[in-house]
Amino acid sequence: MGFTTPKMKETIKKHTGKRVSDDAANSLGEILETFAGDISEEALAITRENGRKTVRDDDIREALK
Amino acid sequence: MGFTTPKMKETIKKHTGKRVSDDAANSLGEILETFAGDISEEALAITRENGRKTVRDDDIREALK
Repeated sequence: MGFTTPKMKETIKKHTGKRVSDDAANSLGEILETFAGDISEEALAITRENGRKTVRDDDIREALK
Repeated sequence: MGFTTPKMKETIKKHTGKRVSDDAANSLGEILETFAGDISEEALAITRENGRKTVRDDDIREALK
């Protein structure tokens, strides 16, 4: 699992049109993984508050606020 | 390209242990795509300032600040 080097490289390249170092791609992957984890944990708290078994769209959106 | 529904579902599930709706997975994908784009564009400005052809790790890290 994870945000792979090729995928992150492609993402940065799409937005910049530049060459992208492997380290830069790996850094973005780590940043996104951390951010996704933070959002997920916040969403989990909301899902639990509502006594639900499924993380819903609203939970993710609310977690961002 | 993009952060696929199955990949985002797996990410949320890993962090929550809950079931995850397709819409929730798609929302996280959109959020990460936007965030990755913002970081990339900020990194691009730094890469350009330094007159380089390659986006480096430092540019990505600096872009977050």
